[in-house]
Amino acid sequence: MPNVSQKGLTMPESPIRKLVPFAEAAKKKGAKVIHLNIGQPDIKTPQVALDAVRNNNLDVLAYSRTEGSEEYREKLTAYYAENDIHVSASDIIVTTGGSEALSFVMGSIADTDDEIIIPEPFYANYNGFAMANGVKVVPVVSDIDTNFALPPIEDFEKLIGPKTKAILICNPGNPTGYLYSKEEIQKLAQIVKQHDLFLVADEVYREFTYDGKEHYSVLQEKGLEEHAIIVDSVSKRYSMCGARIGCLVTKNKKVVATAMKFAQARLSPPTYAQIASEAALETPKSYFTGVKEEYVGRRNLLISELEQIEGVKVAKPQGAFYCIAELPIKDADDFAQWLLEDFRVNNETVMVAPAAGFYATPGLGKNQIRIAYVLDKESLKRAVGILKEALKSYIG
Amino acid sequence: MPNVSQKGLTMPESPIRKLVPFAEAAKKKGAKVIHLNIGQPDIKTPQVALDAVRNNNLDVLAYSRTEGSEEYREKLTAYYAENDIHVSASDIIVTTGGSEALSFVMGSIADTDDEIIIPEPFYANYNGFAMANGVKVVPVVSDIDTNFALPPIEDFEKLIGPKTKAILICNPGNPTGYLYSKEEIQKLAQIVKQHDLFLVADEVYREFTYDGKEHYSVLQEKGLEEHAIIVDSVSKRYSMCGARIGCLVTKNKKVVATAMKFAQARLSPPTYAQIASEAALETPKSYFTGVKEEYVGRRNLLISELEQIEGVKVAKPQGAFYCIAELPIKDADDFAQWLLEDFRVNNETVMVAPAAGFYATPGLGKNQIRIAYVLDKESLKRAVGILKEALKSYIG
Ligand SMILES: Cc1ncc(COP(=O)(O)O)c(C=O)c1O
Ligand SMILES: Cc1ncc(COP(=O)(O)O)c(C=O)c1O
Repeated sequence: MPNVSQKGLTMPESPIRKLVPFAEAAKKKGAKVIHLNIGQPDIKTPQVALDAVRNNNLDVLAYSRTEGSEEYREKLTAYYAENDIHVSASDIIVTTGGSEALSFVMGSIADTDDEIIIPEPFYANYNGFAMANGVKVVPVVSDIDTNFALPPIEDFEKLIGPKTKAILICNPGNPTGYLYSKEEIQKLAQIVKQHDLFLVADEVYREFTYDGKEHYSVLQEKGLEEHAIIVDSVSKRYSMCGARIGCLVTKNKKVVATAMKFAQARLSPPTYAQIASEAALETPKSYFTGVKEEYVGRRNLLISELEQIEGVKVAKPQGAFYCIAELPIKDADDFAQWLLEDFRVNNETVMVAPAAGFYATPGLGKNQIRIAYVLDKESLKRAVGILKEALKSYIG
Repeated sequence: MPNVSQKGLTMPESPIRKLVPFAEAAKKKGAKVIHLNIGQPDIKTPQVALDAVRNNNLDVLAYSRTEGSEEYREKLTAYYAENDIHVSASDIIVTTGGSEALSFVMGSIADTDDEIIIPEPFYANYNGFAMANGVKVVPVVSDIDTNFALPPIEDFEKLIGPKTKAILICNPGNPTGYLYSKEEIQKLAQIVKQHDLFLVADEVYREFTYDGKEHYSVLQEKGLEEHAIIVDSVSKRYSMCGARIGCLVTKNKKVVATAMKFAQARLSPPTYAQIASEAALETPKSYFTGVKEEYVGRRNLLISELEQIEGVKVAKPQGAFYCIAELPIKDADDFAQWLLEDFRVNNETVMVAPAAGFYATPGLGKNQIRIAYVLDKESLKRAVGILKEALKSYIG
């Protein structure tokens, strides 16, 4: 029997997915599972996007242009301009989700065994894309005690070597909820210019910033044009995860030309989803105001409830819709599995994402979990109540 | 300024795309260009698929399951059973086009510098997926004089070494139009079993077989269950290229488990497109009868017209909708560009795909072009007429 690849064997399973069989078993036994583990928003997709697809009049569902339809990319430039990001359509390649943009970026800037520095904890699928592309992830530790702020620049400098090609940040952060300040972005700008590296910013949560804080994009920073690459997506912005539309944005022409080769091989991004994404750009501002209010309310509730549990430490998120909580336990993997297998309150339990999978350094995050607040407040409150009881019982 | 990757720099541009700027320039100057260069069918998408999307009632456009929706995969097993391919839903991973399936397969079965043997000429984007995955393509030459039949098995044996992981075939073939016989598949089965290799079959043109010939799938061959992997797609079958839905099918559980890790990293295939693809399975048989008749008519016309041109040699295709023609010229790249830049008949010219890009061995195919017969007969006939005039003028 022929063997699968070594990289396939060593690729870690997604920390969000590996508990799925236990959740399914719990449901089969009749238990209700409250999902705090996934980044699938419950928010309604803008009507204008849904309608555009329902009213489409295609006769032949043809490939679109490799780089995405001209109309969509043109309209995207207006969206970016509103966010003080000034680009032209030729700086944009439309991709199949932010996921594909991440993969294209890695392939375009790094060869086998090249390194990309990423503050940890980070979005776990960066590992998968790095593995698939033969690229090495080099983590730099950020800390729950500083809300996962940017690590000191000296920590980055220590890790930069001849194989280093880029620093990759997620802003606002999944799983941390941290929003980098303009000053932090400028520190990063300085270091990538000094060492001739790319600065890749995963900005798929750009709109989700709270407490009056504003997002500062790497493409707003003057002088960073040749270094900055944005990874973007409609998935969270318009609650359109199933569309599978994202994009890669950079003013570096060589990166665009190279990413286009990877893009050409896969022919084109999905056509229906581009129709939806183009229409979504017409979403009224009031939609986002409402959505933001909802997330802020959930976050406030979640954090204040969690802080009332003895021994629990929470990083206060200022963006995205995740938070990391440190629990008074040793092994969150074991705890999360136990919740699904053995713990019930009124036949209900919760599913959380153990945070170790978001760290690359072995041993880190073992007593932490990631919670996504993509459920209504009532369920969130009940979920934290269950967690509280569970911790008592688990520790006891 | 930071540099792009070496693999990005060396990755060849798609042979279908590199003439695009010349075609655009011709159109700007007011010329009409007949496209013989692309595999985008002009056939109407089945109404049942179009309607399913128009009538969808999603409120939240959510991620689907990573492996594709349960309903769609269940229905796919019935489609395969009708084609005498007996698989269960757990043997199927739904992908974003056959393209993504190809990429997942390469990542799942080969590590950096591992080798995959492919009869050439082959679908040019195999190069891109191989490059992206760090895998080496090892070509084995097939010949226009035998219609591009399977090369002698000894030719494969000579190329098999410790790094060889798989043989990849395209059946029926793009760009050759060749349909492998049951005997040829059995010869391949023998050799992959003997050397413990995978046999990957790109069967995206399964339905397009002519002259009463039947397609024989690698998954119909008994005893090949652990070796055989099918790459499939709805793109050509239902003229739904823009959906971006394909799949990977194998009874090898380890391959499924490994490919699932790559699939999890990118979250899910597109949701609207799965709705269309599931509905497309209800397409009446009469649709395919009509489509096949149309393609056979086009092929017959194309081949007989081409054979009337002096010095032109054509391989007679029995499947798909492409053929390779050898022209009485030295450099088809130059000829194809000249057609777009300098040659007109009644202000009209044709765009062809130079075939060298479908070969991995340098120097092969330089006097060949690939023609896709995805246009109505009238345009096809005019196009060949223009080619005939062009050859006279180019040679003269
Ligand atoms: C930080 C981050 N980047 C990228 C993605 C990829 O999303 P998509 O491929 O749906 O755009 C996600 C999805 O959860 C994410 O959280
Ligand atoms: C032989 C072959 N395989 C795979 C593909 C990929 O098609 P898709 O990604 O649209 O399924 C094509 C498209 O032209 C093809 O010709």
